Amino acid sequence: MSAPLNDAALDQLFLAARTYNAWLPKEVTDEQLHRLYELAKFGPTAANSSPMRVVFVKSKEAKAKLEPALSESNKAKTMVAPVTAIVATDFEFYEKLPKLFPHADARSWFVGNDASIQSTGFRNGSLQGAYLIVAARALGLDCGPMSGFDNETVDKAFFAGTQIKSNFLVNIGYGDASTNLFGRLPRLDFDEAVTIA
Amino acid sequence: MSAPLNDAALDQLFLAARTYNAWLPKEVTDEQLHRLYELAKFGPTAANSSPMRVVFVKSKEAKAKLEPALSESNKAKTMVAPVTAIVATDFEFYEKLPKLFPHADARSWFVGNDASIQSTGFRNGSLQGAYLIVAARALGLDCGPMSGFDNETVDKAFFAGTQIKSNFLVNIGYGDASTNLFGRLPRLDFDEAVTIA
Repeated sequence: MSAPLNDAALDQLFLAARTYNAWLPKEVTDEQLHRLYELAKFGPTAANSSPMRVVFVKSKEAKAKLEPALSESNKAKTMVAPVTAIVATDFEFYEKLPKLFPHADARSWFVGNDASIQSTGFRNGSLQGAYLIVAARALGLDCGPMSGFDNETVDKAFFAGTQIKSNFLVNIGYGDASTNLFGRLPRLDFDEAVTIA
Repeated sequence: MSAPLNDAALDQLFLAARTYNAWLPKEVTDEQLHRLYELAKFGPTAANSSPMRVVFVKSKEAKAKLEPALSESNKAKTMVAPVTAIVATDFEFYEKLPKLFPHADARSWFVGNDASIQSTGFRNGSLQGAYLIVAARALGLDCGPMSGFDNETVDKAFFAGTQIKSNFLVNIGYGDASTNLFGRLPRLDFDEAVTIA
């Protein structure tokens, strides 16, 4: 049995972590991005389906491809973020199940069952996106997740000819708390969101 | 700027954490469930929409209401788990936006826009479900998430007359590593899932 993590760790992951809108000019290395994936990949998914695919947009060229898809309010901060992760879902994820779930023919549970492909992909790709955010924080990085962009434009620019569809974006780097860091917004009280039955 | 968490913490959250199928007979207190929500609620969601709702099923009566919805392979372990969280989504989440996002009329972005309600609810409710899993591990608890159940049966039993729909289930407690703990399944290699552009 494990003890709770200490208060500093809980602060870093949840209590003091914030969505950043400005970034210090400090690089995120490819090695850090590898380490980030190697943590996040272990978060649980249904039948180990692991449908998330990620493009870490770092180069000027790739940022320029992304820019036309961004909503106005997300443009400036995204163009200067050290990395922007395109968190996406491969809706042909079931083709990887012979590797990921080798003890049963899990691929056959999905082939031809579009409703199940869609819901399993969207649900579990989103879970993995959240693991990515928390894993980044665990590695001392800050995040700025965003839904304000045109998915179709991103998909054409980055995933043409595949069944991979963008889900959401996450700016990743070292947050600049001196600029555009809004006051913490209220959350729902326990009794508004939770029941113990 | 924060340093990475230490190796023991990364193990507890991701690297050594496992999906448990058997549970030690040790209670999870209501106080722990409160603490769990008070961590998980701070994970980021689009426009702070916070659409997740949770029922922590603890009592015999509530477990009996849940049982008919469970797939055969999920029944026995779920009936003995100290807690089973029904992670659900309130598709009327936008009615809480005047509290959650007070500086703009975010409610009006959703009213009458069913596609946006559905995708925002499903995506962000799933993100919050992942925050709940990682937060439970951060508190020293183990998880066993499951999609093998009949959503409609759960919704009729627990959410009748509302727009709240079940998303997935999570058994929570202290995992028994001596029983039904399967070998760690492979994950996709970095190059199978990730591109640095």
